[in-house]
Amino acid sequence: MTYKTPRGTRDFIGREMKVRREIINRISDTFDLFCFDEAKTPAFEDFEVLSAKGSTGEEIQDEIYYFKDKSDRELGLRFDFTVPLARIVSSNPALSKPFKRYQIGKVWRYDRPGRGRYREFVQADADIIGVESVRADAEAIFVIFKAMERLSIDNYKIRINSRKIAEGIILQAGVNNEMIDEVFRSMDKLAKVGEEEVRDELSDKGISIDSIDKIMNLISLEGTNDKIIDQLEEEIDNEIGLQGVEEIKNILNLIEEHPSFDKVSLDLSIVRGLQYYTGFIFETEILQEDVGSVCSGGRYDDLIGTFGGDETPAVGLSFGVDRIYDVLEDEINLEESKVFLAIVDDGLKEKGLEIAKELRDKGIKTQVNLSQRNLGNQISYADKKEFRFFLILGQRDFDQSEITLKDLKSGEETKVPLEKTASRIKSMV
Amino acid sequence: MTYKTPRGTRDFIGREMKVRREIINRISDTFDLFCFDEAKTPAFEDFEVLSAKGSTGEEIQDEIYYFKDKSDRELGLRFDFTVPLARIVSSNPALSKPFKRYQIGKVWRYDRPGRGRYREFVQADADIIGVESVRADAEAIFVIFKAMERLSIDNYKIRINSRKIAEGIILQAGVNNEMIDEVFRSMDKLAKVGEEEVRDELSDKGISIDSIDKIMNLISLEGTNDKIIDQLEEEIDNEIGLQGVEEIKNILNLIEEHPSFDKVSLDLSIVRGLQYYTGFIFETEILQEDVGSVCSGGRYDDLIGTFGGDETPAVGLSFGVDRIYDVLEDEINLEESKVFLAIVDDGLKEKGLEIAKELRDKGIKTQVNLSQRNLGNQISYADKKEFRFFLILGQRDFDQSEITLKDLKSGEETKVPLEKTASRIKSMV
Repeated sequence: MTYKTPRGTRDFIGREMKVRREIINRISDTFDLFCFDEAKTPAFEDFEVLSAKGSTGEEIQDEIYYFKDKSDRELGLRFDFTVPLARIVSSNPALSKPFKRYQIGKVWRYDRPGRGRYREFVQADADIIGVESVRADAEAIFVIFKAMERLSIDNYKIRINSRKIAEGIILQAGVNNEMIDEVFRSMDKLAKVGEEEVRDELSDKGISIDSIDKIMNLISLEGTNDKIIDQLEEEIDNEIGLQGVEEIKNILNLIEEHPSFDKVSLDLSIVRGLQYYTGFIFETEILQEDVGSVCSGGRYDDLIGTFGGDETPAVGLSFGVDRIYDVLEDEINLEESKVFLAIVDDGLKEKGLEIAKELRDKGIKTQVNLSQRNLGNQISYADKKEFRFFLILGQRDFDQSEITLKDLKSGEETKVPLEKTASRIKSMV
Repeated sequence: MTYKTPRGTRDFIGREMKVRREIINRISDTFDLFCFDEAKTPAFEDFEVLSAKGSTGEEIQDEIYYFKDKSDRELGLRFDFTVPLARIVSSNPALSKPFKRYQIGKVWRYDRPGRGRYREFVQADADIIGVESVRADAEAIFVIFKAMERLSIDNYKIRINSRKIAEGIILQAGVNNEMIDEVFRSMDKLAKVGEEEVRDELSDKGISIDSIDKIMNLISLEGTNDKIIDQLEEEIDNEIGLQGVEEIKNILNLIEEHPSFDKVSLDLSIVRGLQYYTGFIFETEILQEDVGSVCSGGRYDDLIGTFGGDETPAVGLSFGVDRIYDVLEDEINLEESKVFLAIVDDGLKEKGLEIAKELRDKGIKTQVNLSQRNLGNQISYADKKEFRFFLILGQRDFDQSEITLKDLKSGEETKVPLEKTASRIKSMV
């Protein structure tokens, strides 16, 4: 009988865990640099909160892990961090704005597991609450620039758009106002199913061929950001669309001096599904890696209001840690300088424990042999577990106030005066 | 309408979050120093795993958050990290031993919420798998010593005992073998309900007054560790009891040179409930604080075998992060050196963003004003959010290649050459 983790969930141990920890640290360091405050919320929420109107699209609603506690309270595992954030902000009107918070942790969706898709996965979210200005939209991009730098990822592209532009395009094509969400729903499938299928779907929804042609022409505009903006300004003359264009111009203007500005390109085909976005939206794609967007987000000025709070503007971004892991799996270098101390004479047990204590007191990660295996077995264990140094404490050395230090990386072996053990090790890393 | 977190669960933001993060970091640093490897397991497990025979006592079984996923799989939220660890070890017989792993995270129990009792709480566990020698038991105590040092907690006591001694005492008092678990169950309530009630309960269970007297006499032995051991050796003559005494002597012998050794005292009245312990057990009490044990654990040599793996000896310890927070809430000093940059002339927007980028590139946590509020409001926001420095970028200063730097701690305000902003701030912290 062998027990496993539930389908779509995983254990993390060993190197995989260490790389994931490193990725999370680099992202949280980035959030810290921008003065986001960390928050943690419960793993489960009242189901009423998770299913609040406007919190998300239907697809995710169907993926909630729902359960009742022993008092028949209806609960569900959180499927993102935006809903809990909206709950916090709407129920704490006294929070100083801008309220900048980040949250990193697990979320759960009962999705079909597959490559890069798990039922339990880790998101790293940062959100700016209470800022109407496009400075907040620009800051989201600065955060991505910095995180990618910290993660040493250079081959990426941030594709940006605005819900307002998308809406302007649809209206410009002569589609009725009430069909906008339906058109979004179809457009969102473009990358997945291709243009033909989206055309068929739109046609089935009663959109005229002429309108479909106009939409397809506009959303596939290519060229520099400036060129696309020029063409939009020529083609669009409705208010919402032009407002979207103006906002995008202002955002680009704020970020254009940044050395990573060339990573950003306007892509009118992205709409970010049925989610709660109201303006600026973005996705981050790693080139030559087929893992989907590793960081998405945008502006959602209506969501907090639907939770019963005051109307509060908001911009957020979300890194997919599992996807970043898939990209960086073999790239991240984890230099370890752990020490394994083998006490080979039983009479030196107490002395050995004292040496281990001294090393740890000086911040050196140290493991003492806990069982009485022979030295060869201990060395191969230390090697397998990626210890860098192997100390051998034996009676003969000890009588000379020495200890044997083996560098498992170089293979070099030397005798070190006992009282210099820590400083010698520190000088070698 | 205001939404809340589900009963027994909490949000963490602001200072509370930062203190909790600091506590967790100090504990994980300690585990790292002893070369435990971090692991993460899913929030939920197959219910079959959680309810496996021997995994825990009945009380906790009743507290599992149980649910079915949409394919009718029976699942439950994890209530500890020992069960997932037993699953991992039993299903991976090839793991190199000793396998030292730590796991820090949330666990869930549907318990009655109260002071220091939550339905969602954080545990920090470290376990040594595959070591028969009492060196592993001693290491558990060394880990507690180091963690308490890291947490700057000095007023604590580690109370130790052995299940074998407890069993030896019960047998010595003439109680039948099959009644041992029942006696444990009653003894475990001693601290909570007092001696009279425990005596009544034992009597109700059919234990003779004479046996109860003997048990009570022995478990209330007081004095130095050595004195208690001497008395036990006089009073006990059954094998299991004497074996327990011998092990405790060996453990004490391994730790007696440590400067914190005086924190450890043998207390024959603790039995650690109905859990899976088989030998050495311990609890850590903060003196003058009524929060219960902040770190408990012991040896559990049978558990992994019951999960279908080979018989594998194991020693573990578990810190209760929420209780440690209750103790340290106001003690932990969080020096922040964040910078708030106020751009007061709109023409300097791009320049301001550039300065913010430079500060962050040099590792300085920096927030730029995102909205156009007046300077007074921005300073009071920065003050409230515990920013240490406030930079004012205005046209007049800028024309002199300067910026105004205000130290919100000392109140001092100076002009700094623009290109020296970062180095000046670094020199002040």
